[in-house]
Formats: sequence, structure tokens, C-alpha cells
Amino acid sequence: MPVSIVGALVKGKPNFLTVAWITIVSHEPQRIAIVLNRNHYTTPGITEMKTFSISIPSEEMIEITDYCCLVSGRKTNKSELFQVFYGELETAPMIQECPLNVECQLEKTIEIGSTDMFIGKIHGIYTEEKYMKEGTLDLQKVRPLILSGSNAQYLNIGKNIGSAWSIGKNMINTPSMKSA
Amino acid sequence: MPVSIVGALVKGKPNFLTVAWITIVSHEPQRIAIVLNRNHYTTPGITEMKTFSISIPSEEMIEITDYCCLVSGRKTNKSELFQVFYGELETAPMIQECPLNVECQLEKTIEIGSTDMFIGKIHGIYTEEKYMKEGTLDLQKVRPLILSGSNAQYLNIGKNIGSAWSIGKNMINTPSMKSA
Repeated sequence: MPVSIVGALVKGKPNFLTVAWITIVSHEPQRIAIVLNRNHYTTPGITEMKTFSISIPSEEMIEITDYCCLVSGRKTNKSELFQVFYGELETAPMIQECPLNVECQLEKTIEIGSTDMFIGKIHGIYTEEKYMKEGTLDLQKVRPLILSGSNAQYLNIGKNIGSAWSIGKNMINTPSMKSA
Repeated sequence: MPVSIVGALVKGKPNFLTVAWITIVSHEPQRIAIVLNRNHYTTPGITEMKTFSISIPSEEMIEITDYCCLVSGRKTNKSELFQVFYGELETAPMIQECPLNVECQLEKTIEIGSTDMFIGKIHGIYTEEKYMKEGTLDLQKVRPLILSGSNAQYLNIGKNIGSAWSIGKNMINTPSMKSA
């Protein structure tokens, strides 16, 4: 799973929680879903403010990223861990140090057992030129973290090994595929 | 996003579609959500049979994985692309060649604009000893693919660079964090 830090205003203060249960859910409009255990300190912040942020930390931020899921906002003030900035929504705290920040407007909350899925419409995406290549985000520059839950390891990314929606075309014209 | 191949029985035949919009949504019971555009050939198969599978291809399977999202089951029979096997649910076709296969029972379908989110309860997880280390799945042996959507690239994974729920403990006892 991809590692993100979810930001929300809780009792008027920015709070940050590491979340790896996250997926894109639609392109038009662009929506992302995050899933949190309901008892997290961050949960009422999202529900009340109806905004949240998703920040992608780089691998250099591994310690502080892990720290954000080890300590709860109930006991520890995490509002000064990062250089915080806000976008147009004004209530979704984002992280200057992260290569990629996504500002979301809460659209829908879905209860699934003891977890809540928050579906957010993307309002803004923030990055810097240094993380881009040829007009698009370059993960090789972002250097995101991956979580392997089964053995509790963070991994970094490897290399680009093929073009999506392209490398499989090699198989379309092979006779065995035509006859399938 | 992590790259998976979703399997379902459509009109009685196994069909496979590459899906990168996927996330775990709960641990007890174990549930996974996948998101598909509603017009996919696979969609009615999942809705009717109420079962589906999620298979994780290894990086060596990059061409066939990409192929599965380039061609639709409407025009191309994908039922013989892989060695197919079934688990207890009997209607969730899984892929022998994939290091990891997850068999799911459809629990809930959530419409989000033009996409459908299928939430499945995990019924079975299938892997082989060679992908395990010390009793847990080892992604370094699985060698999964990562999709970078922005620039349409598949990446492989890098190295294990730190222990989750652990490496951040270094920060808990530093004075600056105590006083935060």
C-alpha cells in the first residue's frame, strides 16, 4: 500500500495521521478514498470540518511518518511537527515538507464495520517543479514510501520498468492471442 | 498504486481485468475494496456471482498484466491466459502464476459517480512457501508492480528501508517532541 499522511483540523489544531488504506476512486471528478479506524483522533475533525488533506511523504521522511501513526493526537500535539500550509478550502492543513499534497472536500462517509471510509473530491493538488518531469509528476523524484503490512516494513520504490497501457500491446498481435 | 488483476466469472467464463484502485478497508473481518468503471465487462460478473478474486502479479508478469487492461473481455476471451484455479467459493477464478491470490465474497457495492466500489470480505488467501519469510509474506519475493498513473509507468519495488510502527519510536523520546 502507498503511505500517506492525512491532515485535518481537530479542535482548531492541525493533526496528522499516517494512513496506508487509500485509493483513487474516480477521475471525473477526481476523488480519493481514505479508510480510518473510527476511534482515531482525526476522525471527528474530518467529519466536522468536511475537509482533509493527503500528503505523500518522501522516503527521507520515514521516521516522522512512522511517528505520526505511533502517537495519537489525543496525547501528543502534532500540529508543530511540520511547516503547515493551507489551500483554498482553508481548513485542510497540508505539509510543506511533502513532495505532494492533495486538498480534499469530504463528499461522503461510508461506515464499514469499525472503520470509516471518507470519500473526498480533490480540490487542489500541490507540488513543486523539482518533482515534475515533462509536465507530470515523477515518482522517481517524489520517492514515496510503500507499506508492506504483512511483515511491517517500509519499502522505497524501485525503477520504472515499463509503460502502462502500452507494454502489453506486444501481446495483442501474437497469433496465440488472436486465436484465444 | 499497487497493481492487481481482478478475476470474476462472466457469462460462465473466467475474465481478468487489471485494477490499481484497490485498498484494504478493515482487518476484522478482513475486507478489501476495488473500484471499477461501471462499463467494464467484469462488473456484471461480480454483481451476479457475488464473488471476485484479487491476484497480485509479479514484475515478470508485466506484459500480460498490462495486456489484461488493454483488451476487454467483450472482444477477447481472456479465460485461457492463465492457469486458473478456484477456492472454496468456487466462483472466484484465481491465477496460479500469481504469487498471491485473494478470494473475496462481495459484501457491498457502492456507486460513486461512474465507478462502482466493490467491498469484499476475504474468504481465502493463497500463496506459496517460496514467497514467505519467517511466517509472513515477503514482498521482496513477491516482487509486485506499482502503477504511477501520472506518467503511465510501472515500477518495481525497492528495498526494505525501515520497520513500520517502530522506526518512528526514535522520535518519541527526543526532548523537542516531549515538549511539543
